[in-house]
Amino acid sequence: MTQTNRQILLASRPEGVASVDNFRLVETPLAPLAQGQVRVRNHWLSLDPYMRGRMNDSKSYAVPQPLDSVMIGGTTGEVVESLNPKFKVGDKVVGMAGWQEFGTSDGSDLHVVDTTHVPLSAYLGPVGMPGVTGWYGLNRIIAPKAGETVVVSAASGAVGSVVGQLAKRAGCRAVGIAGGAEKCRYVVEELGFDACVDYKGGNLYQDLKAATPDGVDGYFENVGGAVLDATLARMNAFGRIALCGMIAGYDGEPVPLKYPQLILTQRLLVQGFIVSEHLDVWPQALTELGALVAQKKLAYRETVAEGLENAPAAFLGMLKGQNFGKQLVKLI
Amino acid sequence: MTQTNRQILLASRPEGVASVDNFRLVETPLAPLAQGQVRVRNHWLSLDPYMRGRMNDSKSYAVPQPLDSVMIGGTTGEVVESLNPKFKVGDKVVGMAGWQEFGTSDGSDLHVVDTTHVPLSAYLGPVGMPGVTGWYGLNRIIAPKAGETVVVSAASGAVGSVVGQLAKRAGCRAVGIAGGAEKCRYVVEELGFDACVDYKGGNLYQDLKAATPDGVDGYFENVGGAVLDATLARMNAFGRIALCGMIAGYDGEPVPLKYPQLILTQRLLVQGFIVSEHLDVWPQALTELGALVAQKKLAYRETVAEGLENAPAAFLGMLKGQNFGKQLVKLI
Repeated sequence: MTQTNRQILLASRPEGVASVDNFRLVETPLAPLAQGQVRVRNHWLSLDPYMRGRMNDSKSYAVPQPLDSVMIGGTTGEVVESLNPKFKVGDKVVGMAGWQEFGTSDGSDLHVVDTTHVPLSAYLGPVGMPGVTGWYGLNRIIAPKAGETVVVSAASGAVGSVVGQLAKRAGCRAVGIAGGAEKCRYVVEELGFDACVDYKGGNLYQDLKAATPDGVDGYFENVGGAVLDATLARMNAFGRIALCGMIAGYDGEPVPLKYPQLILTQRLLVQGFIVSEHLDVWPQALTELGALVAQKKLAYRETVAEGLENAPAAFLGMLKGQNFGKQLVKLI
Repeated sequence: MTQTNRQILLASRPEGVASVDNFRLVETPLAPLAQGQVRVRNHWLSLDPYMRGRMNDSKSYAVPQPLDSVMIGGTTGEVVESLNPKFKVGDKVVGMAGWQEFGTSDGSDLHVVDTTHVPLSAYLGPVGMPGVTGWYGLNRIIAPKAGETVVVSAASGAVGSVVGQLAKRAGCRAVGIAGGAEKCRYVVEELGFDACVDYKGGNLYQDLKAATPDGVDGYFENVGGAVLDATLARMNAFGRIALCGMIAGYDGEPVPLKYPQLILTQRLLVQGFIVSEHLDVWPQALTELGALVAQKKLAYRETVAEGLENAPAAFLGMLKGQNFGKQLVKLI
C-alpha cells in the first residue's frame, strides 16, 4: 500500500504582503526508498522569518524558493524507514525537510539528537538555529563586557529570548523590546531581563531611554524600522549592532534608517550576519545551549499550531508578531 | 614691542547652513612666553570637514567648539621662540594651533618634522591626519584582498586620494566618486584609479554599476546621502564599509539611509571611526605614507587660500566641494 505525503508548496510570490493564497496543500504518494535513503516522519516544523525573504524573487542572501516546490524549513522527527546504515528506525533527528509530513533524505542533512533532557521541539528553538543565531550575534559581534547594556528586539521570540538570557549570564544589563504588555511581562518575569519596552506603547524612544539609563553598548536587531531608529539614538560610543533580521522590510516596502550619521558620530560597528554561514561555531554554541536547556537555566516559550494545513496561517501570524516565543507546527 | 596675533573665532553657531557670519577675525597682543612654552609662526592651516561638526552644539564625538574661542585646527609652522629645551628656533613643527597666525604651546601637541623630502604642507595632508585616516579605514576596516573592488567617495580629496592609491597598491580595482568631470579626470589620470564616477552627472547608480562590474567589496565613505545609498546597492556579500565622513548631514538636516536591509542581506560590516582614537597606528601609517610621498609614489593635490582672513570662505567652499584636493590656508 502506497503511503501518502502531505506537503505545502509555494504557489505564487507575494505582491507586497504575503497571504495564505501564496501557498497550496497537496497530497503526494511516497515513492519507495532508494538505497542510502532515510524516511523521517516529521513531528515539528519550524516557522522562521527568513522564509518570508525566500518567497520573493529578489537579490538576497538566499536563493529564492522555487515556485511549486515544498516550502523550505527546519524540522525534527523520527526515522520511520532507513536504507542508510547511519540511521535506524526510531532515531530522533533534526533536518531540513520543509513543510511536509514526511521527509526523504540521503541523510546528509540529518543529525541524530538526544531527547533525554532536551525536548525534540527545542532543537528547532534554543538548541537549534534560533539559539545559535542569538549565541553568535551576542558572543561574536556584540561581545559584551560585564556591566554593559545589551538591548534586543523581538525579545520574547526564539532568538531574542536567548540573547537576553545569555547577556544576563555575561553580567550585562539586558533590556528587551517586545510588542504588548503580556510579552514584556514575560520577558522580565520569566526570562529575567532587567527591563522590557513595549514598542506598541506609543512612547518607544522615551521608554527605551528610561530603560537604558547608561545608554546602549550592544544591540541585537531582529526587527528594523522604528525600533532600530530608536535604539540607534541610544547607542554609546563604540557600540556594536548585530543585524540579524529586518521583518519590517520583508514585505517589499523599503524602510529607511533615519539617522545613519549616528554610526559615524558614535563610531559604531554594524554587522549583518546569517548564522548558517558560520558553521564553525555551531558545535560550541549547541553544546552550551543544550546544557543550559537541560539544566533548565535557559527558559523558552513555544507557540504551537496543530497540523500541516495550519502552517501558512501560523507563518503569516508570526510575521505580524502574533506568536509568543518560537512558532512551531506540530505534525503528529 | 608687543607683537600682534591675528585669530579667527567662532562667533556664533550655524542655524542650518554655516556662513562667514559665524566667524570673527580679531587682533590680539601676544603675551611673553612662560618657561617651557614654545611660539610657532604658523605657515599652513588645515581645513577639514570635521570642523563643521564642532561648530554645532550637539551630541557628537567631539566636544563642541566653544564660542568666542579660536577655531580648532591642525597647523604646520616654524618655531620662532622657545623656552622649552625640546624645541629650538627654526624647527619645523606640526601642531594643533587652530585658525591663527601664532600658536603658543607647552610643546605637548607639537611634533618636529623633516622637510627634506616631504613638503611642510604635506604633513597636513597625505602625511598627516587625512592620510592616516585613509590608511586606517582601508587597512584596518576594509582590509582589501588583491582583486577586490574598492570604492571611495570624495575621491579627489585629501583622504579619498590616499584610499584609492593605497587600494591600487594592494592590487585592487580602485573606483572613485567625485563631483565634476575635472575631478574625475584627475582621479583617473593623475591618481591612477581604474575609474571615477561623477556624482553630478545625473546617473549616479548606473554609472557606478558600469564602473564596478564585479560589485563592490570595500567602500570608504566620506560623504553619505545619495552616494552612500547608491554604493550600498552595489555591495557584494561580506563587503566592508569604513564610515569616515557624512558631510551631507553636517548642516543639521537628517539624511536617511534608504535601504538599510542591504546590510543584512549582504552581511555587510559597517564601521564608523575617528582616526584620532587610533593613535597606535599613526607611527606605522605615517612612516609608510611619508616614504611614499618622498618617493613620489603617492600623488596629492592642494587648494590653497592665501591669508588667515580668507579661511572662513575657504572652509565653507570646501564643505560644498569647491576645493580640489586638500584645502589649506597659507599664512606666510
